[in-house]
Amino acid sequence: MNRKIRCAVIGLGRLGYWHAVNVKTKIQSAELVYICDRNEELAKKVSIELDVPNFTTNPSDIFSNDRIEAVIIASPTSTHFELLKEAAFSNKAVFVEKPLVSNLDEAKEIFEIMKRHSTICQVGFMRRFDPAYAEAKKRILRGDIGKPIYFRGISRDPASPPEEFIKNSGGIFIDMAIHDFDIARYLMESDVEAVSAHGKVLKYPFMSKYQDVDQSLCYLEFESGAVGDVESSRNAHYGYDIRAEVIGTEGTIFIGGLRQHNIQVLTSSGAVHDIVQDFPTRFKDAYYLELEDFFNALLEGYQPKVTVEDGVKAQEIAVAAQESFFKQEKVSLKTSKIL
Amino acid sequence: MNRKIRCAVIGLGRLGYWHAVNVKTKIQSAELVYICDRNEELAKKVSIELDVPNFTTNPSDIFSNDRIEAVIIASPTSTHFELLKEAAFSNKAVFVEKPLVSNLDEAKEIFEIMKRHSTICQVGFMRRFDPAYAEAKKRILRGDIGKPIYFRGISRDPASPPEEFIKNSGGIFIDMAIHDFDIARYLMESDVEAVSAHGKVLKYPFMSKYQDVDQSLCYLEFESGAVGDVESSRNAHYGYDIRAEVIGTEGTIFIGGLRQHNIQVLTSSGAVHDIVQDFPTRFKDAYYLELEDFFNALLEGYQPKVTVEDGVKAQEIAVAAQESFFKQEKVSLKTSKIL
Amino acid sequence: MNRKIRCAVIGLGRLGYWHAVNVKTKIQSAELVYICDRNEELAKKVSIELDVPNFTTNPSDIFSNDRIEAVIIASPTSTHFELLKEAAFSNKAVFVEKPLVSNLDEAKEIFEIMKRHSTICQVGFMRRFDPAYAEAKKRILRGDIGKPIYFRGISRDPASPPEEFIKNSGGIFIDMAIHDFDIARYLMESDVEAVSAHGKVLKYPFMSKYQDVDQSLCYLEFESGAVGDVESSRNAHYGYDIRAEVIGTEGTIFIGGLRQHNIQVLTSSGAVHDIVQDFPTRFKDAYYLELEDFFNALLEGYQPKVTVEDGVKAQEIAVAAQESFFKQEKVSLKTSKIL
Amino acid sequence: MNRKIRCAVIGLGRLGYWHAVNVKTKIQSAELVYICDRNEELAKKVSIELDVPNFTTNPSDIFSNDRIEAVIIASPTSTHFELLKEAAFSNKAVFVEKPLVSNLDEAKEIFEIMKRHSTICQVGFMRRFDPAYAEAKKRILRGDIGKPIYFRGISRDPASPPEEFIKNSGGIFIDMAIHDFDIARYLMESDVEAVSAHGKVLKYPFMSKYQDVDQSLCYLEFESGAVGDVESSRNAHYGYDIRAEVIGTEGTIFIGGLRQHNIQVLTSSGAVHDIVQDFPTRFKDAYYLELEDFFNALLEGYQPKVTVEDGVKAQEIAVAAQESFFKQEKVSLKTSKIL
Ligand SMILES: NC(=O)c1ccc[n+]([C@@H]2O[C@H](COP(=O)([O-])OP(=O)(O)OC[C@H]3O[C@@H](n4cnc5c(N)ncnc54)[C@H](O)[C@@H]3O)[C@@H](O)[C@H]2O)c1
Ligand SMILES: NC(=O)c1ccc[n+]([C@@H]2O[C@H](COP(=O)([O-])OP(=O)(O)OC[C@H]3O[C@@H](n4cnc5c(N)ncnc54)[C@H](O)[C@@H]3O)[C@@H](O)[C@H]2O)c1
Ligand SMILES: NC(=O)c1ccc[n+]([C@@H]2O[C@H](COP(=O)([O-])OP(=O)(O)OC[C@H]3O[C@@H](n4cnc5c(N)ncnc54)[C@H](O)[C@@H]3O)[C@@H](O)[C@H]2O)c1
Ligand SMILES: NC(=O)c1ccc[n+]([C@@H]2O[C@H](COP(=O)([O-])OP(=O)(O)OC[C@H]3O[C@@H](n4cnc5c(N)ncnc54)[C@H](O)[C@@H]3O)[C@@H](O)[C@H]2O)c1
Repeated sequence: MNRKIRCAVIGLGRLGYWHAVNVKTKIQSAELVYICDRNEELAKKVSIELDVPNFTTNPSDIFSNDRIEAVIIASPTSTHFELLKEAAFSNKAVFVEKPLVSNLDEAKEIFEIMKRHSTICQVGFMRRFDPAYAEAKKRILRGDIGKPIYFRGISRDPASPPEEFIKNSGGIFIDMAIHDFDIARYLMESDVEAVSAHGKVLKYPFMSKYQDVDQSLCYLEFESGAVGDVESSRNAHYGYDIRAEVIGTEGTIFIGGLRQHNIQVLTSSGAVHDIVQDFPTRFKDAYYLELEDFFNALLEGYQPKVTVEDGVKAQEIAVAAQESFFKQEKVSLKTSKIL
Repeated sequence: MNRKIRCAVIGLGRLGYWHAVNVKTKIQSAELVYICDRNEELAKKVSIELDVPNFTTNPSDIFSNDRIEAVIIASPTSTHFELLKEAAFSNKAVFVEKPLVSNLDEAKEIFEIMKRHSTICQVGFMRRFDPAYAEAKKRILRGDIGKPIYFRGISRDPASPPEEFIKNSGGIFIDMAIHDFDIARYLMESDVEAVSAHGKVLKYPFMSKYQDVDQSLCYLEFESGAVGDVESSRNAHYGYDIRAEVIGTEGTIFIGGLRQHNIQVLTSSGAVHDIVQDFPTRFKDAYYLELEDFFNALLEGYQPKVTVEDGVKAQEIAVAAQESFFKQEKVSLKTSKIL
Repeated sequence: MNRKIRCAVIGLGRLGYWHAVNVKTKIQSAELVYICDRNEELAKKVSIELDVPNFTTNPSDIFSNDRIEAVIIASPTSTHFELLKEAAFSNKAVFVEKPLVSNLDEAKEIFEIMKRHSTICQVGFMRRFDPAYAEAKKRILRGDIGKPIYFRGISRDPASPPEEFIKNSGGIFIDMAIHDFDIARYLMESDVEAVSAHGKVLKYPFMSKYQDVDQSLCYLEFESGAVGDVESSRNAHYGYDIRAEVIGTEGTIFIGGLRQHNIQVLTSSGAVHDIVQDFPTRFKDAYYLELEDFFNALLEGYQPKVTVEDGVKAQEIAVAAQESFFKQEKVSLKTSKIL
Repeated sequence: MNRKIRCAVIGLGRLGYWHAVNVKTKIQSAELVYICDRNEELAKKVSIELDVPNFTTNPSDIFSNDRIEAVIIASPTSTHFELLKEAAFSNKAVFVEKPLVSNLDEAKEIFEIMKRHSTICQVGFMRRFDPAYAEAKKRILRGDIGKPIYFRGISRDPASPPEEFIKNSGGIFIDMAIHDFDIARYLMESDVEAVSAHGKVLKYPFMSKYQDVDQSLCYLEFESGAVGDVESSRNAHYGYDIRAEVIGTEGTIFIGGLRQHNIQVLTSSGAVHDIVQDFPTRFKDAYYLELEDFFNALLEGYQPKVTVEDGVKAQEIAVAAQESFFKQEKVSLKTSKIL
């Protein structure tokens, strides 16, 4: 009989709830024994619905529980730093949602602490587990496109999240573009050394209050000599549009597509297919696969495939992008780098 | 806490194994307590791998077990008739792989028996649960294409199964085209009243020994006045190609596609995407969804969505197609119909 | 300076007018000196519009004119036989619209006459000149798909032509499917030896008056051992849909597509592209290229690429298809063949 | 009989030759009576091949010829200024290839001169006549996408032109991105007010000698409040890739595609289609249509659809982009604007 990792989920919001569902219903190598949300009613409701034996509003109940091996952190970003420290101190393996923490000081400190405690930690960059991105990576590793020289990433949301969310999101570079920064490093097989960022409020005036924008474009320069760009947008009324292009010296890969159902409806006004509308649909498999791999890593003793170092590096790019946007000039990562 | 249906799987071959895996690892509403295969070694191996408490080589051990509510039959078609009878007599709900039984006499008898015993039975026409076909059905029901007037179904395998399988498969109409016959009835919202079948051996000479062909084309006439055709082929070296087109008076739906990964690789010799190669990949979701719905039907008390009547009707078309192919003339179902 | 072939167009209807325009404005190797239509007003109008020096209502004015080398016949099919005879007797090269003539007796006779007079004759199967079909042929000749074993042809019109046209059209097999019969022979590199045809009136009750149908399906058996099918329809409300698939032993080619403009419009209800609506749009290039090649053949002394023999052979298949449809049985071409 | 504009072509290189061919063989409203190239041999050869009555090596022979109404200038950009002046002084209508002239001083002067002489002038931004871009414009004018808020333009060449060309090309912004700057203005229905440019040499080290790059990215800010970006690349080994996306408040349009022939070849290694490889193939129709419209404008007395003002404005953006690239900072067009 297979061993199951006893685990807990902290934060049962938009994403945490799905993580709990996936662990409970799909991941064979894990057993969900505890859930936590500051909102007691929510914690209780989910514990009943998913038949989880224990719930709490206090994360420390989980970290102090010796029978729990792994913790999934899906509470707001502002809480990550403290929770990650507790995880390190209590010797739990940890899966933490992106972004790792709120700023680079925290990042630097948590990186050191985890190193000292040999904490096993995976960051929630689920795109790496999406079948399309994963296949692209395989092809690149296999040499199908030669050396990657240009990266193009597009992430478009159909609408802005509510003002309440934007307020605490850290801004478009840290909340949204960070996924592209990570996948760019991953597919280009190189770190980024400089970023120039542009942005504008096109649709949501409230963004200005938080020095945020609903549209941005970052120009990336990689250490390998490659370059690239990342577009982020909250204005793609037509759907949730996530794509990338990797141009290599000998081949190019286009990743992603808009189509939801594999059908086309034809009338005299044209041929139409529907479009993926949200991230839970687009990355359904990826959210499941990243957790499955996390638990397999624990069981089989290999390093998680998205490390805390990856979390820090993506964050450095995002922070540099934001700085570049504010200063209206290129920002070099050479000096800002903490690792 | 959710109730789970205690169930068993009989036959652990190509498909039965996957059904067992799905029940064990993905279906929340079922508990796999018994598995059976005539091959003891196989039954034992799977019971260990999937951590199933009981295994046997004798199906009767399952039917006589009072604590089992539902049985999944995935043994060879020739065994379906006897096993279905046992299921009816022992008051088990049953999920049976297509085709229902081996011939129309058996079909007629089993239909009567199940009616008498009020047996709950779902037939394994998984295409109805495939997200693309299901969405097409939804659109048709919603009236998006008006009245369906033409059906076109294509099912192409990349290669013939081994001679050993073909020998007992019942032939291309009963083994393969039957999926299209069912989905045609489903999408066209009408029964078939006549069929004209053509076929040829294009690649596998051994087919002739069993009066079988590796390529066939059936022309269907529906009771509604619509017509259509179904192509079946074992010769699509490029992959597993399942498509349909439904032309209505006001709209048309194209269903399916060849693409496997959502990436495209571009070189100076062109833009290429990979192609789905086999049925477990193409219908991964459908195989899971049909079982999930079967158990939900049991729990919530609704009729399974693919009934034994559907099984019989598809079989009638398949048998008529075969007869038409042998006689080289159109065969009307009006006379052959048993329901 | 390049020599120009002095030529005439007979019949200035839907297609003849376009042929005249193409010769006048695009074909460098021809000079349009005479046009003819039974309808005097039309002939006069076109002669003014296109600045053609002479017009007539009497085809004989053209055949008796010694300074004319080539004649394009685009009058109704029923007139082809007489006009082709005149062309042969007067030693004109001739481009004749499909179908060659009205029936097989005429076909046999005209074939003999042309042979005797060494008449140069090209038949208007323009699909062979369409860039997509032409490229497919090139690939097949190059061996890219091995030996062709299955042909699938689809021709769908958005609506039926008016009753007046259907009345004299010769029926769906001779008027419409004949294009697929020719292209099937061309791409499969084999003649057809038997055909089984099915058909139905789905939308236009008046079809029945002329023993015609608005939907048909032909199953073809080739001398090479390959098989195939041809669907013809007047009911594709969504547009003009011409496609083919050629399955070979080592590769498969899909030909054609629905898209008109190379743009996609995305809204929250999906991604839509427009669809080609008619044959002048779909085969714009082909209609021009077939004529250009006809005149080049004359100037450079090579055989036209679609011969009168091709015209006869396609007609044999069409006639056999019609017979098969009436008799409801397979019709073998072995006996009917006249060449 | 239709009147024909008597015209001449100056410069018979890569593009000028095609313009001469199009005028000679396809444009009904023009008559090519004179051609000119500094290279006498070339001028003579083309005059024989295309049967043009006169040729010269001296453009003044053309401008001084009273019977010539219109001149097509397709000589190197450095010659445009002098030739345009002669055209204005001699009252010829003129079609001039992009870019209008070599720098903004020339642009300013020529704009004034032409205004004074009421010179009719069309600039060779052929994308506006490409059926895909033209359809997109139609839809935008019709209001299909609401107000345009984001523009994305991609222009990728399969390889760099030879060093000799790059040397005098004016650099990637003026030689290549200028097409996107024009089409951006056209589709976004707004002028550009600021541009930030980035670039890098990825593949061709010789570019550095001329302060040029083989890859660039421009961020555009429009007067309307919209923003956008333009990628230009000489490194798309896979083909000639021209695309655009226009995001509006209510709809989005994707323009362009890579596919050359409308066929797909399927083998066990995937489904492949070929890719357009060069600009004469991609814009074949557009090069013809822009000239046809130029002559129609002359005949019918309407303003050419791409004016000298359009030429100046695109050049302003290109010059600003280059400046921004050199200075590594945003350049505002408000101050640089000359009109
Ligand atoms: N990977 C992705 O695609 C993706 C998508 C969305 C969100 N995220 C990340 O997931 C995290 C959560 O985002 P969300 O959108 O689910 O947020 P959310 O606001 O929907 O949910 C957060 C939940 O955490 C609870 N909570 C707050 N403080 C807590 C604490 N101290 N202890 C326990 N519970 C606490 C809240 O009550 C709430 O239920 C963020 O870090 C976000 O960046 C990632
Ligand atoms: N829905 C689909 O797409 C699909 C696909 C493949 C097969 N099928 C159907 O599934 C059924 C099984 O096909 P398969 O391809 O898995 O066959 P298979 O030969 O791979 O497996 C059949 C298994 O049943 C076992 N078996 C034989 N007789 C038995 C008995 N009396 N009791 C218990 N076990 C017995 C065999 O030992 C074998 O392990 C057939 O009816 C087939 O038509 C459906
Ligand atoms: N290749 C294709 O895709 C295609 C498409 C349409 C039609 N066609 C063929 O083209 C031919 C004409 O079809 P159409 O659709 O243009 O027909 P149409 O009825 O539109 O035009 C025929 C014209 O011929 C004139 N005409 C009749 N008898 C004449 C005579 N004896 N001499 C001179 N003129 C005469 C009529 O006045 C009319 O103007 C038919 O053979 C048809 O099968 C081919
Ligand atoms: N619209 C487009 O897509 C496109 C594409 C390519 C080039 N162009 C433009 O077209 C123009 C020509 O480019 P090209 O690539 O054809 O160049 P090219 O070098 O191939 O040809 C230029 C020709 O002009 C001749 N010439 C030079 N000076 C002359 C003079 N004073 N009088 C007469 N002839 C002279 C040369 O001998 C040569 O034959 C440039 O302005 C370029 O930017 C536009």
